[in-house]
Amino acid sequence: MAGRKIENLDEDECLRLISPGGIGRIAYQGRFGPAILPVNYQLHDGAIVFRTAEHSAMDEDLRTGIADAEYRVAFEIDEFDLAAREGWSVLVQGSAHHVRPGAERESAEAAGVEPWPAGDRELFVSITPARITGRRITG
Amino acid sequence: MAGRKIENLDEDECLRLISPGGIGRIAYQGRFGPAILPVNYQLHDGAIVFRTAEHSAMDEDLRTGIADAEYRVAFEIDEFDLAAREGWSVLVQGSAHHVRPGAERESAEAAGVEPWPAGDRELFVSITPARITGRRITG
Repeated sequence: MAGRKIENLDEDECLRLISPGGIGRIAYQGRFGPAILPVNYQLHDGAIVFRTAEHSAMDEDLRTGIADAEYRVAFEIDEFDLAAREGWSVLVQGSAHHVRPGAERESAEAAGVEPWPAGDRELFVSITPARITGRRITG
Repeated sequence: MAGRKIENLDEDECLRLISPGGIGRIAYQGRFGPAILPVNYQLHDGAIVFRTAEHSAMDEDLRTGIADAEYRVAFEIDEFDLAAREGWSVLVQGSAHHVRPGAERESAEAAGVEPWPAGDRELFVSITPARITGRRITG
């Protein structure tokens, strides 16, 4: 543990780290208090975009929340090397909304946002970042 | 994507998956809305236990929250094989409190809960699960 350091990352570095997309985790206020679920995301036009199944538990919660104009969520991406005990994490905080049919939807589809599981996952969710913070732990 | 399935995991399977400890992520209501941060946790006496730095951003938020008797948080652990597009995730929802000095603290220390970064990380936080859910994505 000795000598290991936490370094805060600036927004540019955070965006660089999360730009490849992949697995991230969304936190939102659900029926049983806060909840976290992993999703397959893309960074698209500066927003976090992912797909969920219609009528999934997350969708029901998000749908209720998004009905409020300002539905705040958190999105986290990280990468750790367990052996070296090093890694980084980025936290995006902002508001979530359903991607609207039309130009916004076509643009999100073009970004290649793919969910892993099979099935009808036709709801695109977009998170507009209001605050991006990150930190790196190094030896 | 075709043929990939989501399977719900029962509580015993969830506990088995998260029992080795490692990196998990806590979500809580912070000053800027929901927040998620990765921590190094152990499963100890059926509770999620980890350490934070006193006066860290998370600690300030948690301290404010934990002052409420029922401070609900979420804790997520997952493991994905990006190449195979398979993996699992477990979501623990419950209340968080600071581990009290004395027997509870000694027991948590004995569990070997270690934070990665150096420094004075003397606050032990414990999450008592109220609800444990999980899912596995397979090909």
